[in-house]
Amino acid sequence: MPVIELADVQAAARRIDGVAHRTPVLRSRTLGEGVFLKAECFQRTGAFKFRGAYNKLASLPEGRDVIAFSSGNHAQAVALAARLRGVRATIVMPADAPAAKLAATRGYGAEIVTYDRWTENREEIGARLAAERGLELVKPYDDPLIMAGQGTVALELLDEVAELDAIVVPVSGGGLIAGCATVVKALRPSCRVIGVEPAAGDDTARSLAAGERVRVEIPRTIADGLGAPEPGELTFEVNRRLVDEVVTVEDDELVEAMAFLFDRLKVVVEPSGAAGVAALRQGRIPAGGRVGIVLSGGNVGAGRFAELVAGRNEA
Amino acid sequence: MPVIELADVQAAARRIDGVAHRTPVLRSRTLGEGVFLKAECFQRTGAFKFRGAYNKLASLPEGRDVIAFSSGNHAQAVALAARLRGVRATIVMPADAPAAKLAATRGYGAEIVTYDRWTENREEIGARLAAERGLELVKPYDDPLIMAGQGTVALELLDEVAELDAIVVPVSGGGLIAGCATVVKALRPSCRVIGVEPAAGDDTARSLAAGERVRVEIPRTIADGLGAPEPGELTFEVNRRLVDEVVTVEDDELVEAMAFLFDRLKVVVEPSGAAGVAALRQGRIPAGGRVGIVLSGGNVGAGRFAELVAGRNEA
Repeated sequence: MPVIELADVQAAARRIDGVAHRTPVLRSRTLGEGVFLKAECFQRTGAFKFRGAYNKLASLPEGRDVIAFSSGNHAQAVALAARLRGVRATIVMPADAPAAKLAATRGYGAEIVTYDRWTENREEIGARLAAERGLELVKPYDDPLIMAGQGTVALELLDEVAELDAIVVPVSGGGLIAGCATVVKALRPSCRVIGVEPAAGDDTARSLAAGERVRVEIPRTIADGLGAPEPGELTFEVNRRLVDEVVTVEDDELVEAMAFLFDRLKVVVEPSGAAGVAALRQGRIPAGGRVGIVLSGGNVGAGRFAELVAGRNEA
Repeated sequence: MPVIELADVQAAARRIDGVAHRTPVLRSRTLGEGVFLKAECFQRTGAFKFRGAYNKLASLPEGRDVIAFSSGNHAQAVALAARLRGVRATIVMPADAPAAKLAATRGYGAEIVTYDRWTENREEIGARLAAERGLELVKPYDDPLIMAGQGTVALELLDEVAELDAIVVPVSGGGLIAGCATVVKALRPSCRVIGVEPAAGDDTARSLAAGERVRVEIPRTIADGLGAPEPGELTFEVNRRLVDEVVTVEDDELVEAMAFLFDRLKVVVEPSGAAGVAALRQGRIPAGGRVGIVLSGGNVGAGRFAELVAGRNEA
């Protein structure tokens, strides 16, 4: 029996209806007539993560408080979902997470507990706090309800764009692509599902090649949303069956794609969120046909964006 | 008899239908529940100017080639409108216009003629070339068809947002606000029409106070789209009757608003385009009620944005 099925994503779509945004699909003549960008940067909390978090919290017993560990976007997503559901959220975040993400998470009313992501294990800290405080742990990706929530991205995209030949999805722990692949292979099996990882954190590409989960060093990449060092157990179970291919992109290619999206589409996309466009512009996505690309998030501060782009100009 | 009437804007709306984008209306909880942003940064060529240019060209005899002089966005608008109408465009641009705007205008297939905006007069150059080459001069604002085209911004906004109490519009030559004011005062007379100018180029504010057109020094401001030193003759005839108030903003306030729109709404807005949000955030727009703000354009390069934001951080 599969970890999740289309019906789980459809149930998630009903739960998030009227709460999450149905994000727009953008076009760019420069990228190509057949390219469709699903703009999750315009999702609530600025990233797709809100879909899964809300789906999870809406499935818990009423009044159940939650805890989450996250490099940022999942944190904000759980914090807002908790506020909307009327429960308390404790968030375990790396001490070096982007300041904008820490501030935003606090802004949603969550309590923040920080840790050192180079020496401490967030899973252990999360599990300990959950046990001590009697909280429900909301995992960032390795949970069927989270995966199903993220899959609503593909449900909306297929609903809006007919006859897609490929969908391109950034990969970290693998929850977004697992949900999307479940939808795509059920509704349009001929559509290829292509993941994109930072070259410094290609654990899913290696794992698919090895046929089992492979752990890499904690990736040192500007794509702070793609920092998982190994695929999730449940997500990999889905992705090993349904993902056709995973390609990689370098940090400078992510910055180029961010600047392109800024200049031509007037949209703000964080490094992780630009991975699909970077892969396309670098020729790593099969040319031709109709391609959907998930712009997974837009949480990069104006100052940080300025640094990244200025660095590119000097190079 | 007024320079333009509601019927002229309605006719423009029919001409641009299916050619110009119907741009989205964005919200931001931080700005306020009653604030509605009309995102013309997502318009074709990245600014509202396409509306007026296409309306003008679609009203000319078939095959009539055109010339225009512009600090940038009007240039791109005329260039694209000409290509779509199958005619040739000659564009007279300041030599120091943003490189991205020069490149984009050439990219639409227009011929560029540059001039020095500190020593030469673009109106004279434009008139001379028009006579020499037998071209139709497409003025950037002082033309009823241009004003009527720009007025479609307000037509769409009023159609989408009920019971607006005020509309806030950036002002340079005055074409956009003249078109918008014509619509607003016909359809919803109780709605205040508020212009925003850079403090360094407050010619319309001074002109309204004086009751006649006042010319100022060529404004030295980062808002390169708001560089007109005096109101247009026809636009002022409209605006003196229909505009309730004009407020001003400083350059650093424009940068703050650009960074805010980047961080919170994930949208790219050029300095001119951020004028309304800057005025709102500085408390220069009457608080309360329902306020529509026109984000007039998004044509600022990623590198230039980085410079502006970095400059702010160092201050």
